Amino acid sequence: MRFLTEYFWFNTKQRREYINITDKVEGVARKSGVREGMVLVSAMHITAGVYVNDAESGLIQDIDDWLDHLVPFRSDYRHHRTGETNGDAHLKSLLIHHEVILPVTDGALDLGPWQQIYYAEFDGQRRKRLVVKVLGE
Amino acid sequence: MRFLTEYFWFNTKQRREYINITDKVEGVARKSGVREGMVLVSAMHITAGVYVNDAESGLIQDIDDWLDHLVPFRSDYRHHRTGETNGDAHLKSLLIHHEVILPVTDGALDLGPWQQIYYAEFDGQRRKRLVVKVLGE
Amino acid sequence: MRFLTEYFWFNTKQRREYINITDKVEGVARKSGVREGMVLVSAMHITAGVYVNDAESGLIQDIDDWLDHLVPFRSDYRHHRTGETNGDAHLKSLLIHHEVILPVTDGALDLGPWQQIYYAEFDGQRRKRLVVKVLGE
Repeated sequence: MRFLTEYFWFNTKQRREYINITDKVEGVARKSGVREGMVLVSAMHITAGVYVNDAESGLIQDIDDWLDHLVPFRSDYRHHRTGETNGDAHLKSLLIHHEVILPVTDGALDLGPWQQIYYAEFDGQRRKRLVVKVLGE
Repeated sequence: MRFLTEYFWFNTKQRREYINITDKVEGVARKSGVREGMVLVSAMHITAGVYVNDAESGLIQDIDDWLDHLVPFRSDYRHHRTGETNGDAHLKSLLIHHEVILPVTDGALDLGPWQQIYYAEFDGQRRKRLVVKVLGE
Repeated sequence: MRFLTEYFWFNTKQRREYINITDKVEGVARKSGVREGMVLVSAMHITAGVYVNDAESGLIQDIDDWLDHLVPFRSDYRHHRTGETNGDAHLKSLLIHHEVILPVTDGALDLGPWQQIYYAEFDGQRRKRLVVKVLGE
């Protein structure tokens, strides 16, 4: 059984940002030497997420608009009584989900033709971490 | 360590359709010979999803209504500037999520009494692919 | 290859309740003896979910309010023609998702500093089950 765990740090310029991490994940998968297995890609923060979808700039803006429509910034989240102002970022993380798990087949990520992996930052401008773990043989 | 990867193709008659794939996934799990492990069930397209819930026709219609309420068809998605008209299908895929991972225990899917696995098509009427990968021993 | 599967039962006092299960999952991970692997944490019912986020009581109330806003109780869900009255609980389960999968590294859950695992009950006041499965070596 083979394993490889790598961590990546992000520090986005914008509060919300969507970063294509497919090459990073593919790199970890190849480096692991795993021919058959799975890769877990998981945000380690509770105001960020990971998703799989299209690398198309218009769609990425649609995703951002839509998330902000279903989970708007509001001043009256109860969470803000702690001094935080990022209640919306927590809920956006829940909506998009914080992790994905992907198949590795014949030594490569087994993705469909348009599937790209994104790190979704909802409360950036500070250092945040992602874990990528490959398991297989 | 044992592995088995199988692919299934769908070509739905309707644009949106919800297909119970529990028997297909159970079949792959049994065929793999895995006694203890996990099964990943993942859409390979970015306008489809996979979820676990009830095989009850009224609820399936409720799910469809609800998804279409939270992510309506709109003509003005930015993604449509590419010539596509399926912006809503991308967002519905993100909302329902594109994959599930299920336990295999004692050689069978370890599901609760009402848990059924569905392939959710949001932009059908063309060939789309699903991957089922079992890992364990 | 090592495996451990444990089940936990919940019977909440409220219809909706959010229970921090991080210690339970950590306990199963440690008991398994797995040094490198993954843990699947999955509700076995279709009206409950599992998510990872902050252990902050204000935020938990925000999550509950937000879920109930996007998926309100309604009397006219088609699912209710079966005699059930929990259509909203099914949709809340889909929105929050029914499972998470977490990395195990160096013999412990590899979580970020604020990541806590929650069991989200949407139709409680009766016995419901959760499965925790560790796989690795």
